[in-house]
Amino acid sequence: MAENDSLSDFLASAVDAAKRAGEIIRRGFYETKHVEHKGTVDLVTETDKACEDLIFNHLKQLYPTHKFIGEETTAAFGVVELTDEPTWIVDPLDGTTNFVHGFPFVCVSIGLTLGKVPTVGVVYNPIMNELFTGIRGKGAFLNGNPIKVSSQTELVKSLLATEAGTKRDKPTLDSSMNRINILLAEVRSLRMTGSCALNLCGIACGRLDLFYELGFGGPWDVAGGAVIVTEAGGLVYDPSGKDFDITAQRVAASNPLLKDAFIEALQQTE
Amino acid sequence: MAENDSLSDFLASAVDAAKRAGEIIRRGFYETKHVEHKGTVDLVTETDKACEDLIFNHLKQLYPTHKFIGEETTAAFGVVELTDEPTWIVDPLDGTTNFVHGFPFVCVSIGLTLGKVPTVGVVYNPIMNELFTGIRGKGAFLNGNPIKVSSQTELVKSLLATEAGTKRDKPTLDSSMNRINILLAEVRSLRMTGSCALNLCGIACGRLDLFYELGFGGPWDVAGGAVIVTEAGGLVYDPSGKDFDITAQRVAASNPLLKDAFIEALQQTE
Repeated sequence: MAENDSLSDFLASAVDAAKRAGEIIRRGFYETKHVEHKGTVDLVTETDKACEDLIFNHLKQLYPTHKFIGEETTAAFGVVELTDEPTWIVDPLDGTTNFVHGFPFVCVSIGLTLGKVPTVGVVYNPIMNELFTGIRGKGAFLNGNPIKVSSQTELVKSLLATEAGTKRDKPTLDSSMNRINILLAEVRSLRMTGSCALNLCGIACGRLDLFYELGFGGPWDVAGGAVIVTEAGGLVYDPSGKDFDITAQRVAASNPLLKDAFIEALQQTE
Repeated sequence: MAENDSLSDFLASAVDAAKRAGEIIRRGFYETKHVEHKGTVDLVTETDKACEDLIFNHLKQLYPTHKFIGEETTAAFGVVELTDEPTWIVDPLDGTTNFVHGFPFVCVSIGLTLGKVPTVGVVYNPIMNELFTGIRGKGAFLNGNPIKVSSQTELVKSLLATEAGTKRDKPTLDSSMNRINILLAEVRSLRMTGSCALNLCGIACGRLDLFYELGFGGPWDVAGGAVIVTEAGGLVYDPSGKDFDITAQRVAASNPLLKDAFIEALQQTE
């Protein structure tokens, strides 16, 4: 089997898994939910667990030799170790707080790394019925239609996304709000939707021009979206301007035209 | 004609106007747009103007003796004067920045005041196909299904919405960010979607628990949503805790259970 064929197969399997998990999310979204608490602002639902089981079972049956990293499993059993092996990195329900509140920015995020490089990505929002897909070297798509990043060149006309995060200690809040304050003086406006994976897809389809987030949960938040941004003509990088590290819990994304100005603005906030 | 009958007629006419305007918004949303600038971050589009003309013409033909207040007309010709006469207050396209960027939180907002009291409200998001409606004393609905505010009682479990606004001077930014910083220490998380009318509807259907905004454009941002929140069992009030004034460019909304705690939290930020 040629490599491109197998990448297409991997994508098809991931889309299949994401759509099945999406059905579970859609049903739960409109129902009263039994919510467990990981912490005050970090929620796990039965849906989250059911979706991870479904996705892992589906992909493990097809690809028994592949590695798997998932938000729920990792949170329960510990360390994330990303190797060169084909590795599926899964967030079964990104935007858990949104799910609990019935706010429609929720998604399944599935990424496959080969040699640690994000290579296949699927991000599916079952409430808004938006399926974002990407394969390294083969473009990015929203519901099957090609997408590309915005052509914006000026920060002052750019729409920025970030998140408030889950930490509520004073030093973290002061630092986050100060960063946002400085950036707001330079951009058109700010959006916070509560899903890292959907923010990356927002960059990919040009709804958003700039996105950064520091201290999110793990590689499952970015593994799917990173391929989609890159294949839509965008760049994913560390907010310091260094290379993106999928395990670093730090991400920035934009079109190539805005990268330097965005990094400069972010550096003012250090 | 009994009063209830005529209120139902008013609502039907507003829904009709909103749906026609929504068609124009939907077409424009997916096209390249010719954008004029009112200021750096405040945009007017051809769509905005076309929608206001359509809605005003539609309603003026049906109700020639009624008064009309619209964002575009007021911005062009000056002062807002709200009288006791039946008055249609219209934002033809709330979320203009979202519209320009293709971010899906855009809506038509139409409110009717009788004796200065918001009495009929329609908020229609043509991209997500969500039609929120309310008539004073007759309940609130999303796509025809009854909606109600959340039953949340604790700030720490509440999802807060606000907006970054359009002013970018340092005192305003410092004050806004300080307010958000203080509130974030007390709530679960924060959403910023770029539409005041849709934030009010988010409170009405329980997706959001708390919303406040200071210094938004005018009564057209809140006239439709205020009825919908109230009829969904919620409260609309001034962020200081005083009575809501539709012309004051200040609004807060929540369920009744959270009001006192929310006002107390907001007062810490003064």
